Amino acid sequence: MTNEPQVRSDLPIGLAMTGERQEHDALGAIAVPADRYWGAQTQRSLVHFSIGTDRMPQELCRAYGIVKKAAALVNLADGRLPRWKADAIIHAAGEVADGRLDDHFPLFVWQTGSGTQTNMNANEVIANRAIQLLGGAPGTQEPVHPNDDVNMGQSSNDTFPTAMHVATLRAVSERLLPELGALATTIEDRSRRWNDVVKIGRTHLQDAVPLTVGQEWSGWAHQIRDAAVGVQAARAGVLELAAGGTAVGTGLNAPAGFGPAIAARIAELTQARFVTAPNKFAALGGLDAMVRMSAALRGVAVVLMKVANDMRWLGSGPRCGLAELRLPANEPGSSIMPGKVNPTQCEALVMICTQVFGNDAAVAFAGSQGQFELNVMRPVVIANVLHTIRILADGCRSFRRYSVEGTELNRERIRHYVEGSVMLVTALSPVIGYDRASAIAHDAMDHDISLREAALRSGAVDAETFDRLVRPIDMVGAGVAGA
Amino acid sequence: MTNEPQVRSDLPIGLAMTGERQEHDALGAIAVPADRYWGAQTQRSLVHFSIGTDRMPQELCRAYGIVKKAAALVNLADGRLPRWKADAIIHAAGEVADGRLDDHFPLFVWQTGSGTQTNMNANEVIANRAIQLLGGAPGTQEPVHPNDDVNMGQSSNDTFPTAMHVATLRAVSERLLPELGALATTIEDRSRRWNDVVKIGRTHLQDAVPLTVGQEWSGWAHQIRDAAVGVQAARAGVLELAAGGTAVGTGLNAPAGFGPAIAARIAELTQARFVTAPNKFAALGGLDAMVRMSAALRGVAVVLMKVANDMRWLGSGPRCGLAELRLPANEPGSSIMPGKVNPTQCEALVMICTQVFGNDAAVAFAGSQGQFELNVMRPVVIANVLHTIRILADGCRSFRRYSVEGTELNRERIRHYVEGSVMLVTALSPVIGYDRASAIAHDAMDHDISLREAALRSGAVDAETFDRLVRPIDMVGAGVAGA
Amino acid sequence: MTNEPQVRSDLPIGLAMTGERQEHDALGAIAVPADRYWGAQTQRSLVHFSIGTDRMPQELCRAYGIVKKAAALVNLADGRLPRWKADAIIHAAGEVADGRLDDHFPLFVWQTGSGTQTNMNANEVIANRAIQLLGGAPGTQEPVHPNDDVNMGQSSNDTFPTAMHVATLRAVSERLLPELGALATTIEDRSRRWNDVVKIGRTHLQDAVPLTVGQEWSGWAHQIRDAAVGVQAARAGVLELAAGGTAVGTGLNAPAGFGPAIAARIAELTQARFVTAPNKFAALGGLDAMVRMSAALRGVAVVLMKVANDMRWLGSGPRCGLAELRLPANEPGSSIMPGKVNPTQCEALVMICTQVFGNDAAVAFAGSQGQFELNVMRPVVIANVLHTIRILADGCRSFRRYSVEGTELNRERIRHYVEGSVMLVTALSPVIGYDRASAIAHDAMDHDISLREAALRSGAVDAETFDRLVRPIDMVGAGVAGA
Amino acid sequence: MTNEPQVRSDLPIGLAMTGERQEHDALGAIAVPADRYWGAQTQRSLVHFSIGTDRMPQELCRAYGIVKKAAALVNLADGRLPRWKADAIIHAAGEVADGRLDDHFPLFVWQTGSGTQTNMNANEVIANRAIQLLGGAPGTQEPVHPNDDVNMGQSSNDTFPTAMHVATLRAVSERLLPELGALATTIEDRSRRWNDVVKIGRTHLQDAVPLTVGQEWSGWAHQIRDAAVGVQAARAGVLELAAGGTAVGTGLNAPAGFGPAIAARIAELTQARFVTAPNKFAALGGLDAMVRMSAALRGVAVVLMKVANDMRWLGSGPRCGLAELRLPANEPGSSIMPGKVNPTQCEALVMICTQVFGNDAAVAFAGSQGQFELNVMRPVVIANVLHTIRILADGCRSFRRYSVEGTELNRERIRHYVEGSVMLVTALSPVIGYDRASAIAHDAMDHDISLREAALRSGAVDAETFDRLVRPIDMVGAGVAGA
Repeated sequence: MTNEPQVRSDLPIGLAMTGERQEHDALGAIAVPADRYWGAQTQRSLVHFSIGTDRMPQELCRAYGIVKKAAALVNLADGRLPRWKADAIIHAAGEVADGRLDDHFPLFVWQTGSGTQTNMNANEVIANRAIQLLGGAPGTQEPVHPNDDVNMGQSSNDTFPTAMHVATLRAVSERLLPELGALATTIEDRSRRWNDVVKIGRTHLQDAVPLTVGQEWSGWAHQIRDAAVGVQAARAGVLELAAGGTAVGTGLNAPAGFGPAIAARIAELTQARFVTAPNKFAALGGLDAMVRMSAALRGVAVVLMKVANDMRWLGSGPRCGLAELRLPANEPGSSIMPGKVNPTQCEALVMICTQVFGNDAAVAFAGSQGQFELNVMRPVVIANVLHTIRILADGCRSFRRYSVEGTELNRERIRHYVEGSVMLVTALSPVIGYDRASAIAHDAMDHDISLREAALRSGAVDAETFDRLVRPIDMVGAGVAGA
Repeated sequence: MTNEPQVRSDLPIGLAMTGERQEHDALGAIAVPADRYWGAQTQRSLVHFSIGTDRMPQELCRAYGIVKKAAALVNLADGRLPRWKADAIIHAAGEVADGRLDDHFPLFVWQTGSGTQTNMNANEVIANRAIQLLGGAPGTQEPVHPNDDVNMGQSSNDTFPTAMHVATLRAVSERLLPELGALATTIEDRSRRWNDVVKIGRTHLQDAVPLTVGQEWSGWAHQIRDAAVGVQAARAGVLELAAGGTAVGTGLNAPAGFGPAIAARIAELTQARFVTAPNKFAALGGLDAMVRMSAALRGVAVVLMKVANDMRWLGSGPRCGLAELRLPANEPGSSIMPGKVNPTQCEALVMICTQVFGNDAAVAFAGSQGQFELNVMRPVVIANVLHTIRILADGCRSFRRYSVEGTELNRERIRHYVEGSVMLVTALSPVIGYDRASAIAHDAMDHDISLREAALRSGAVDAETFDRLVRPIDMVGAGVAGA
Repeated sequence: MTNEPQVRSDLPIGLAMTGERQEHDALGAIAVPADRYWGAQTQRSLVHFSIGTDRMPQELCRAYGIVKKAAALVNLADGRLPRWKADAIIHAAGEVADGRLDDHFPLFVWQTGSGTQTNMNANEVIANRAIQLLGGAPGTQEPVHPNDDVNMGQSSNDTFPTAMHVATLRAVSERLLPELGALATTIEDRSRRWNDVVKIGRTHLQDAVPLTVGQEWSGWAHQIRDAAVGVQAARAGVLELAAGGTAVGTGLNAPAGFGPAIAARIAELTQARFVTAPNKFAALGGLDAMVRMSAALRGVAVVLMKVANDMRWLGSGPRCGLAELRLPANEPGSSIMPGKVNPTQCEALVMICTQVFGNDAAVAFAGSQGQFELNVMRPVVIANVLHTIRILADGCRSFRRYSVEGTELNRERIRHYVEGSVMLVTALSPVIGYDRASAIAHDAMDHDISLREAALRSGAVDAETFDRLVRPIDMVGAGVAGA
Repeated sequence: MTNEPQVRSDLPIGLAMTGERQEHDALGAIAVPADRYWGAQTQRSLVHFSIGTDRMPQELCRAYGIVKKAAALVNLADGRLPRWKADAIIHAAGEVADGRLDDHFPLFVWQTGSGTQTNMNANEVIANRAIQLLGGAPGTQEPVHPNDDVNMGQSSNDTFPTAMHVATLRAVSERLLPELGALATTIEDRSRRWNDVVKIGRTHLQDAVPLTVGQEWSGWAHQIRDAAVGVQAARAGVLELAAGGTAVGTGLNAPAGFGPAIAARIAELTQARFVTAPNKFAALGGLDAMVRMSAALRGVAVVLMKVANDMRWLGSGPRCGLAELRLPANEPGSSIMPGKVNPTQCEALVMICTQVFGNDAAVAFAGSQGQFELNVMRPVVIANVLHTIRILADGCRSFRRYSVEGTELNRERIRHYVEGSVMLVTALSPVIGYDRASAIAHDAMDHDISLREAALRSGAVDAETFDRLVRPIDMVGAGVAGA
């Protein structure tokens, strides 16, 4: 066609108007701020759902840009959208994906449980921006209609979970996993550095047999790596996309093959291996992949809480604690006690882990509350999962940079503990038996004498044997992996 | 004294400077934005704790204004602060309390677990503002020092929990309880209005004996009132303040009587019955009153989830559900299914309740993790409790205004159900016995005939008896309270 | 009547038969073990709900005996049951209440959500035992019918929650509260005994200013007392009984006044202030009082976890830990490390607290899942709440007897810490200012010298002043309550 | 040697003695029941840890038999144990593994957090039984010593987590996964059977566009299969065994290669692919594999709750509910309402799922509380995980047998809904646009007329077009997988 509309793709973002304009939807007209791209349904949601301060996460809104762009590409390829219209939608959706229209996504988390209002927010913003790009008047729904064109072949019920998966996958891959890796790497580096420093082990908080500092740190690193593997594995479910199921999973109003086609486009746009979900009824009725991802993230929190707790305990003191580690002092610790230094990064991380436990509880609960063809707990789930990813990733970075990297050993204290410990008696056990070894240990503790003294006066071993058997460095086994 | 500094209390808020100024603390100097009142420790926290997007709640920061004002009043009365200095601090702290310095509290939730950095934020902002009011230069710590003057007789360890309690008490009293009351009142109004409308009861989701719509709604209202009573009761613990315990509960560096005196001042300033905590070691080492408040708030969520679920189920349909209620249509329900109306307010409330469950899990976990003289999980606790209060309060208001108030009965459907129900047979049971009544019910269901027909053909009752006994209106008991 | 049946109340419990007998209900006949009192519905439940190993708690079954006895007393007083029949029921129900028929309550927790099968278990056992007492043949339902007579004026929907409340109230009052009191008393005794022993305080796990051992222990005792008050307060809701509401809250088939009458009887039988619930629709549709009780029990766990953790940390060592406390050695601690002593009672208590958190999560979740006129999550709720009470009560007793009572101070270590701590510098702060005090503390730590040495060489104080101000005993405040 | 002891392997289990015998350990002598194989440490635990009624799970005790047998096999092969002694231990451990000594494992869950007392229970029982088999006197620790011989090369710290993993793996593989498979298979069978039955879809509980019954059931089956895959995947971590790490992970007192060797033996004995854990410090300090398994089990609960809820809602009625499904009547539903049938299997399953949520919360909490070289929350974790597996497996079986298998369709009701639904209008949307379709739907609902009537009177479509487009059977897409 010669006179089909032209996309003016260089038109800068912005509606240079003040006051209000009228937008309308199936329930009638409503005024919206004239400088915003959103339409009637977004505005209604703002009125009816002004609850708290929790906004729909930016990552989700941007992921919606990708979904809408992919849908337009499929509709274009199928000949369902004319090129000029598809181009306008693709351009506008791309701007959403790039975060350039973030300010036009004002809605709250606490809205309809399907996320329809945010889907319509995306449809409306993209339609109005596309209309603008095509020289039309925002609010007219001409020549681009938010439902008929931008939402073509789609429903909130399949696009919202699709955008959830896209946003989650990216946040996990781009933010969390790199930070977990960096933290583990730093700990592994210290593990190697301190692999020959023998220290006392502690079980039940009580003195136990020795190991090396490097071995202890290797355990932390291994736990973190392992938890990261759990997160990686949980990505598999997130890579399956609901798009194509439309309203109830049957794909009504989407053409045959829409599901695989849009998944392929999304995979292309994100460079991630997205595929269409094998069963759309499950994909709409449940939130199982998100629940599993949340559980994997909780697994990270379980581990980080242990590591951060160990570090702050080993750094306790300086004079009345364990004091094996010297954590960096980043700030004055107390408003009243001068000179106090506290393990604040550990505390922040522990609090983050606690929050992750809470977030995960909310997600799992929500996941169980689906009904028939739809689980309408989607916004609360995506808000919590993205919150979890964000604070874990940032928390790991902060903990690594401002605590782990600057931590040093108090070698004197570490040596002092090893030398004094009574539990080295364990090395005698295979030779003199558990019962006699036990009597020696109790004698040493009860009379506050050295283990060596107690052993020799017991008559169970001679000095030569004792000195040969009770050598901490020989008690720590074959290396980092443990026996 | 003739030449003591004068407080220029009409000096508007604001530091009309650009660039940076140097602030210092025990660790040295650091540059802060020149137009901000905060000092070195706040700035260090911004550097080291840039984690996520969760800011320390405004309500907590404002409550800190009250605490600092009260402390200055006590120190003034005790003669520990000269009047001119006290006046400046009191003036600045009042501005914090009024929210006029909100923009100067930039810190994140994920910081030191004692909240020291936010206490120092308050101390620094108040000190610099007071310095300004006294004609001095911000950053000089002269003539008002953040620790020695603003923090006089205090520690983070006692003021942060004090501010937590003040903020929580106010949020509960001013925001949540009124909304719970308004919701219950609206439901009670409908309960009265519909007290004579007989409907079918449902237990196990299965048809049961009848009750009235008013009775059903009275149950909801009662549950809400009861949950509100739980929240009111939980205020008792929150009214006990840690202030006066200073660093570890002993009150070191606070004068005798500081605890009761500051509690009295806070009570005065807030018009709430705050008292000093009877045991400061418990007040610092634990977070028990907050855990109890969180549990009471969870109790609200437990109830609201039930009410919102009942309402959306009773409003299910319009043609393939229970359809006893007609919920208002506030927005188009679907991006793909034209004309669809969804119970979106119920869904938002259910999601809020789910979040509250998660928040509460985080709070209780945090409450259990205290160590020795301090529980360093305070920021995560106050963030979650205030979040819970805010979304519950707003959620109740939204649910009431946009769903409950506009809900109408579908009387025809309600009557239809009552007439068809087989469970009215229960009224025959005392006369003909459980076993014969059971046989009649099964006969009606198996052969899809009316209960009356089945009863008569059983021979167990005659028509006159049936019609006398099986009268729904007589089966609903004595009134709203139930039997 | 001259020839009315006689209750042979001296007839011993037991059915001296082998093999099976036929029982029947509305669905037909079914064989039950001939030596068991239960009937058809119990047997059907055993077939259909053989799930796991969790039996309906004994306390609940016994409480059902009280409820059934009270109902018969009311029905007798109302003239609805003839004396001879009422007497037989009362006698049999009394045996249930006394636990003498425990072996006849075989059902699992995982059954119908209303607990109907356990109500029928009670009805059937009582009916058959009453029939036996009256000289009849078990299984004939003559002259005592499980539904028409034993269940007269009742439903599972009102009696099961009533029995839940009775069982919970008794378990809390008779088992948990006394143990919490005994534990607090023991700790208070130690608090007094050690009230003059100055020790180092620890905040953020780092050395802080001193307090006394007595003060520290007073905090623990206070937290426990406070948590117990929370449990006591939660009894209020549990004292409200659903009985009288029958199937849906309206009281259908119960005579007027049945609710208050049966509550009064139950109060009499249990010597507890039970009353009828003010709104039966709420009482049946919700589980709110149970959720609140569970939350109060969680509050106990929150506190006990803190106390047990503190104790095991303070007892850590013997040579490489804090070692301020010497916990009793009740058993060899390790199968491999001879002589090892572990804080096993603390560990058991911490695990119990963890379980209580889990149990409470299940209860709250269940409480939110009510539908219309009934919440059908009752068995899981009562099982968890009674489990929680039992392990908390036993755990407190065990912890007190085998750990707290035998704990001793390591006074030398305690003194050593106080003397070495740098944080005593805080006492100088009011005199020389926070900043100079801070510099002194850092100097002492950096150069590993005593605080006194660092203070004197700073020039900020002279020896006389230092010795006057830095006296630990003067730094611990006015006594147990803290400042 | 010619006169080495002979194992009398035909000696029946049992100690034919009455009264008590003396056993001793490092703390001295203590009397144990003469007919029990256990020794001093088990007896001490019974005294000090009589808490609640939760016994250490049988599965764990039996798994300990496998671990001890494997250890003896390795020690024999290494020449550390003489054959006659190894044979006796292997024989006795085999009896433990086979459950033949279950009655000799009396300990409670609430004991030392390392499970040492249960390890010693196993060591003592096996030692005494081996002594008996060798003709010795139980209690003499001759010629088989519980620590030196049975526990050779082991610690509680590595064997208890090993036994946890063995017990968990077997319970999951032998009990849960088969039941999940059977349930999914039954549902898939019905999905195929009813794949052509068109029914109304429901989203937000509101009428939506149609799908087939088979599609709906396929979604449930898919969710269950998917959750089972999650459990299978979680087995990977459980297959890694801590054995070989001994007390702190270094393997002290175990010979080189003990870890891989014992893992290989356990793999042989159980026919499962157990391997030695790659990092023993992580394996002892954490419980991560158990936390992940618990999360996977929670994933099953999330799904089953949805399925059970859907089924009971679809079966609600018979006359005042949705009534699309007819669930089997296994028992009378009500003690007061004759003829009532309730979805009791669904309710039991929903309660089980709730319990699983609670159990998982306890497990994750416990997993986060490790300290240094050991996490001492092991008994609470294994108790909860095995409890979860047991009730899920049994619950699935019960639900399948007594509810799913007997469920039938109410085809008339299903057809009635489809015919009446207004949401079929969605099929018109691609042709006439969303806005006009929406107006038609509202007209039909507002005036209670058929969709066809409203469509025709709107003028937007003619009859022929309507009848061509609005055909439910054409709206359900391509088959089970959804579009």
